[in-house]
Amino acid sequence: MSKIRVVKQVLEWNDDVSESIKSITSEKGVTIINVMGSPGAGKTSLITRLIERLGDKYKIGVIEGDITDTIDADKIDKLHIPVVQLQTQGACHIEAMSIEHILPMFDLDNIDILIVENIGNLVCPAEFNIGEDFRISILSVPEGDDKVAKYPLMFSTSDCVVMHKYDMKPYFEFDDVRVENDTLDRNPKAKIFRVSSRTEDGLKELCEWVESKLK
Amino acid sequence: MSKIRVVKQVLEWNDDVSESIKSITSEKGVTIINVMGSPGAGKTSLITRLIERLGDKYKIGVIEGDITDTIDADKIDKLHIPVVQLQTQGACHIEAMSIEHILPMFDLDNIDILIVENIGNLVCPAEFNIGEDFRISILSVPEGDDKVAKYPLMFSTSDCVVMHKYDMKPYFEFDDVRVENDTLDRNPKAKIFRVSSRTEDGLKELCEWVESKLK
Repeated sequence: MSKIRVVKQVLEWNDDVSESIKSITSEKGVTIINVMGSPGAGKTSLITRLIERLGDKYKIGVIEGDITDTIDADKIDKLHIPVVQLQTQGACHIEAMSIEHILPMFDLDNIDILIVENIGNLVCPAEFNIGEDFRISILSVPEGDDKVAKYPLMFSTSDCVVMHKYDMKPYFEFDDVRVENDTLDRNPKAKIFRVSSRTEDGLKELCEWVESKLK
Repeated sequence: MSKIRVVKQVLEWNDDVSESIKSITSEKGVTIINVMGSPGAGKTSLITRLIERLGDKYKIGVIEGDITDTIDADKIDKLHIPVVQLQTQGACHIEAMSIEHILPMFDLDNIDILIVENIGNLVCPAEFNIGEDFRISILSVPEGDDKVAKYPLMFSTSDCVVMHKYDMKPYFEFDDVRVENDTLDRNPKAKIFRVSSRTEDGLKELCEWVESKLK
């Protein structure tokens, strides 16, 4: 009897690869953080602040996901930590298969935290597990307080929601309590932080939470 | 000989349907505008302002694209114009097939302008023609001035780029000349407007341009 080849749907295949990444990082003691949010939510700025505050204590690497270009990877490279630019060439999200391909480019014995900056998009990235240990979703104040209700999947699958550019709150109609309630209604275990990467308010609390989640 | 069924790829099929929509709207004298931008770029606010300024002179209808919920459609409905909510139920863009399905819900003999608010996403919507006569892309100041370089397809396929929330420029590092140059390098024919829906600066010029593009 001939062997039947089974080709899995992308999402199912993606989840298998995600699990396989998790067993590699478990063995190596590496924590993968999947950082998601809209274009311009401030993902790169927040990652930069996390590296500045945690980089002395932990060895950090970054995978920068972008459609094209190396703008964000160039910024991270200036911090003198290992960074790989993943260009999706048009695709609107990162898949686990790409992370699996990139993982051997890092010396995992010398990495404690691998931060993945996902594509700026509130929709598709949420559907794809990428072997992460936890997810941080960023919602910046200028985007408006209705985004959790309008793009629920991302915020309901994240371990942590950061209301970012929080110093800009006086200039926008932004009801932070609505964001908090909309998140907790869908995702009661989510941690919520109010953070400004410019003034650095809220970063201490966020970093403490990140540390508590490391392997 | 049996007839061979040919199933087209989604993008090719989408373009066929887009052309078919165009022949219907040509006959009816309806102009379709595809409004695209990030979550929170201010698409609904800008559309509201366009309706306020053009609604006395032209009969306007709106298709509100959202992943879920009716938050934006409810806002437009208050303006007492025909509005249909298209829920993509997870999909990150609108396809022409959905517009074709919705079109008969409007009395096209009594519509001059049909505005489609696309899903908040700088990536996927740009790939799908939806029978539009022209595209307006919105980039809000708080998102940052690197977005044209990072998400080039949307801005290079748009007839008009609106730098939105322009009254917020003093509070952000935002180089409007960079945005203009990055756009014109990729798309020399693009019209560029600096607009605030809050202060209403720039709206007059944008409305005049929209009027010049109507059928």
